[in-house]
Amino acid sequence: MLTGVRVLFIGGDARQIEVIRKFSEKDALVSIVGFDGLTDQLEDIARERLSIELLEQTDVLVLPVMGCDNEGKIMTLFSSEPLQLLEEHFAVLPHECTVYTGIAKPYLSNMCFERKIHLVELLERDDVAIYNSIPTAEGAIMMAIQHTDFTIHGSNCMVLGMGRTGFTMAKSLQGLGAKVSMGVRSEVHFARASEMGWEPFLIRDLGRKIVDVNLLFNTIPTMIVTAQILSQMPTNAVIIDLASAPGGCDFRFAEKRGIKALLAPGLPGIVAPKTAGIIIANALVQLISDEIKIRGDEK
Amino acid sequence: MLTGVRVLFIGGDARQIEVIRKFSEKDALVSIVGFDGLTDQLEDIARERLSIELLEQTDVLVLPVMGCDNEGKIMTLFSSEPLQLLEEHFAVLPHECTVYTGIAKPYLSNMCFERKIHLVELLERDDVAIYNSIPTAEGAIMMAIQHTDFTIHGSNCMVLGMGRTGFTMAKSLQGLGAKVSMGVRSEVHFARASEMGWEPFLIRDLGRKIVDVNLLFNTIPTMIVTAQILSQMPTNAVIIDLASAPGGCDFRFAEKRGIKALLAPGLPGIVAPKTAGIIIANALVQLISDEIKIRGDEK
Repeated sequence: MLTGVRVLFIGGDARQIEVIRKFSEKDALVSIVGFDGLTDQLEDIARERLSIELLEQTDVLVLPVMGCDNEGKIMTLFSSEPLQLLEEHFAVLPHECTVYTGIAKPYLSNMCFERKIHLVELLERDDVAIYNSIPTAEGAIMMAIQHTDFTIHGSNCMVLGMGRTGFTMAKSLQGLGAKVSMGVRSEVHFARASEMGWEPFLIRDLGRKIVDVNLLFNTIPTMIVTAQILSQMPTNAVIIDLASAPGGCDFRFAEKRGIKALLAPGLPGIVAPKTAGIIIANALVQLISDEIKIRGDEK
Repeated sequence: MLTGVRVLFIGGDARQIEVIRKFSEKDALVSIVGFDGLTDQLEDIARERLSIELLEQTDVLVLPVMGCDNEGKIMTLFSSEPLQLLEEHFAVLPHECTVYTGIAKPYLSNMCFERKIHLVELLERDDVAIYNSIPTAEGAIMMAIQHTDFTIHGSNCMVLGMGRTGFTMAKSLQGLGAKVSMGVRSEVHFARASEMGWEPFLIRDLGRKIVDVNLLFNTIPTMIVTAQILSQMPTNAVIIDLASAPGGCDFRFAEKRGIKALLAPGLPGIVAPKTAGIIIANALVQLISDEIKIRGDEK
C-alpha cells in the first residue's frame, strides 16, 4: 500500500487514467492536474490547478510518458488549458521528491539534474521496455495486415535487431505462421534466434538476405535500411520501422523506389492504452514501494 | 499445364486478378469480361464483352467468389458496365462446361441444375475453407487490435466452434500469447482443444464460462450468443462474429447492453486479396487439371 504518499499527476493520455486509478486503489494521496475535461472517469479524485503550493507538497511527481517538451510544456488529452513546468516549479519540489516520466527530453533532465531531483525514465528500464514490446508488436502486426494484400502466415518476415522489441516481434510473427528471419550482430543472439526456430543471419549479410523479404520490421535505431539495401529489396515489400524517430530506414529512397515504408509511432498508447497504462502503473507502484521500503530500513 | 482449355472469367475483385494471372501462366486460352477499367495489369489478356458467341466457346466459366445475385447480376470492381447472366447465356454453354464460383445463390444453382451444367462452389470445399481461414483469422486479429484498448497477449480470448475457421482462429490467438478457451460440442473436439493447449468447454456451459471473457470470436452460424449469454458477459468485452451473415450474435441486445459486437465481413478479400486469390487459383487449377486427366483416361 502507498498510504500517505502524496502523488501528483500532471497531464497525459488514456494511459495515465489507469495509472491514477491504480494509485488511488493503493491508497496514495492523489492529486491530478490537467484532467478537468475528463468527466466520466476518476470522479472521486479532485482536479487541481498547477500551483507552487501543490508542488511543495509532492512526494512523487508523475509526468506523461513523453514528459514535457524543451519549454516545459506538458501534453494532456483531457484539458484545453496549457500546462507548463517552469524553473520556479522545479525549485519548490521537496528534496526527497522523485519525478517519473517515460522518456525525458534535455529540458527535464537538466532541470532535475541541476536541482538534484531524482528523475526516473520508465521506458529506459528493461522490464518496462519488454512489457511495452507486447503492444508494440501487436500494433506492428495490425499495420502489417492493413498495409499488405497478403497474409503474414507463410510470408517471409524479417526482423532487424534482437533486443527487447525485436524478440517479441519475431515471436508474434512466428505465432501467426510467418517464416521469420532475424538479423543480429552477436553470436549469442545468433544462437538464441536459431533455438527459437527463426533463421538467423548477421546484419553484414543484410543486402544478400533481403532479396526475398515480404515484410521487414526494423528495431535498430541507426540508418541500417539504406538506399543500397533498399535497392536489393522487392518493390512490393512493406517496411515497418519500430525504431525511435527518425527510424533506421531511408524513407526518401524507399518512396522513390515505390516501397511502402512506415515509421510506426508510439504504438502502445495507440493500440492498447489500457494495457500500456497498466504496464506503467505496475512499474511505478513497484518502484515507489521499493523506495519507501529502503527509506524505512534506513531510518 | 492447361494448354487449349478455354477459360472465361466474368467480373470479380482484386482476388480474380491473381486467378486470371495463374491461368494465363498455365497456358489456358483466357478471356475476361468486366475488366475494361483495369489498365495497369493483365495487359496481355484481351478484354471481351459478354456475348452468346463467347459463352458457346467456353470450357470453364469462372464467376466471382460471390457468384451472381438472384437476378443474375455479377459484381465487378473493374468496370462500370452492368453484367448480367441471363437464361439465354446459360442455355448456350457447352454440355461439358463447368461453372466455378465461391458461393452460389439459388438463381445460379437453379440455372445450372436445370441445364445439367456442373457447378462447383469452391468455398464449400474443406481444403479451400481451411486455406481461407488464414486471412480470416488475420483479419479478425486486426479488428481485435483496432477495437480494444488492451493487448490480445494475456487477455481471455474465447472461440466458439472448432471448425475450419475456429481452429485457425484459436491457434493464431495462442500464437500472440492470449489465454484461449474453446467452446465445442463434441468430445473429439474437446480432446483436440485440450491437446492444443486451449481450455475446452462444452457449449452448454457457455453462460458460466463467459463471465471473464475479454474477446469473443464466434464461428457458429446459428443464434448462440443470445441476450441471456450477453447478460453474463463483461460490458467491456468485444465480440467478433465470423459466422456468415446474419452471424450468431444478438447484435441488438449487445448494443443495448453496451457491448461492442462486430459482424466481420468477408475478410480474406479485404485484408489479403492477393493471398485469397492465390488460394482460389490453386484450388481451381488443381480441380480443372484433375478433370482433364479423368476425361483423358476415359477416352
